[in-house]
Order: sequence, then C-alpha cells, then structure tokens
Amino acid sequence: MFIDNIKFDDRGLLPAIAQDWQTGEVLMMAYMNQEALEKSVKTGIAHYFSRSRQKLWMKGESSGHRQHIKAFHIDCDNDTLLIKVEQDIAACHTGHYSCFFRKIDGDSFTIVSEKIFDEDKIYGKQK
Amino acid sequence: MFIDNIKFDDRGLLPAIAQDWQTGEVLMMAYMNQEALEKSVKTGIAHYFSRSRQKLWMKGESSGHRQHIKAFHIDCDNDTLLIKVEQDIAACHTGHYSCFFRKIDGDSFTIVSEKIFDEDKIYGKQK
Repeated sequence: MFIDNIKFDDRGLLPAIAQDWQTGEVLMMAYMNQEALEKSVKTGIAHYFSRSRQKLWMKGESSGHRQHIKAFHIDCDNDTLLIKVEQDIAACHTGHYSCFFRKIDGDSFTIVSEKIFDEDKIYGKQK
Repeated sequence: MFIDNIKFDDRGLLPAIAQDWQTGEVLMMAYMNQEALEKSVKTGIAHYFSRSRQKLWMKGESSGHRQHIKAFHIDCDNDTLLIKVEQDIAACHTGHYSCFFRKIDGDSFTIVSEKIFDEDKIYGKQK
C-alpha cells in the first residue's frame, strides 16, 4: 500500500497542498495524520488534522465547501502530499477561492482576488 | 514590514510552496526560517532552512538550479508562504522538473514527467 511509504513527521503529520485540478491555482496547505490520509483515499473527499483543535476534520464539514480529490501526488522525499482537487465554492474561510489571496507588495499586501461568499453567512458571526 | 506579521511555527519554521510562475505547476515544498525568508526577500533568489542539516541553504547552491522569485503570497493564517518562481533547469534533485513527479495510482506510483537532467552528473555519484 502506498501509504506505508509515506513519512509522517515527528508529530505524525504530513503537509498536504491542495491545488485546483483544472487551473493549477494553489488553494491551501494543511496537515493530514494517517487517519486523515486514509479517509481522504477511501472517500475521495479531503480530510485533514487540525493542529489547533487536535482532531480530524473533513474540509467543508461546516461550510459545505468540500474538496473532491482527482489525484494524489507525493514528493521525492515521500514527506509532502499534493492533491489535485475540484473545490466546491471556495477553499478559504475568509470567502476567497484560495487562502493565498494576498500578494506581498513591499511592506504591505495586495488582495489579488475578490470574495466569492460572505463568511458571516456561512460560518456565523461568532467564529 | 510584512515579515513581522508572519507566524513561524514552534521550530521557527515557515512552510514555503514553490510554484512555477507561468504554468502554475507546484515544484516543491520546503521550510524557511526568518533568515532564509529575509535573504529570499532581499536577493529575490529562494533560500530555505534545511531541517536535516540544520542550516540555511540557497536553492541551487550545488546544482546551479536557482529559483528566481516573481511573487510572494501569504495565506489567510499568515503561516504558509507561496512563492511564484522562475525555475532554472529543474527543482528536484532527482532530475525531474517538479518534486511531485509521482502520481499515486492505487497501490503503486506512476511517474508523470520525464527526467530533465542526470542527477549523477550534477551532484556526483557519492550523494
């Protein structure tokens, strides 16, 4: 099984980069533990491990904004995953399609994409 | 300064994804410490921090395969960097353009890109 070759770090985590399977836009980077990876493989829907909450989460479990995995790529060191995904609505909780919506421009930022959804309506104002 | 807003992890490291600035291909993921980030910003050439060697390295210092940074993007949590680069020759030490040249295909891998260079000629056989 390919999972046996993958090297999780000393915290048991694997960085996973999610990329739009059609445009190539990089959407986000998060971490999978072994259970998250196994669920991602089994279901075809991206699952991650939240370091802050210390628990498994399915991307989109609150928002509905799931990631349908079209391909898994592994890097030369077997320690970083690249998943090519079909993203429902948007990847970022701020309302942007990609989490990398800010380009560093000298000492400040430029926002390079518009919001697709209103995060207060999706997640509620209490977040 | 934008660097002041960036959150390095408890090891003082920041994951940095390098992406081809023209095609969008994801090339590699490595880590920067504050010094590597500052050198990357100052020189426009990607510098990283090697966790195995515990030292700063300039990508291409042995191979000549440098990454010329065209843009820096930061994610919504300020803890992951995406750099858009013009890659000299290839990113991967194995001879492939991207480190993610293996697509997981059930229980095995499919190599999805040809080698661009012979790594023995670039790095020597003793590596």
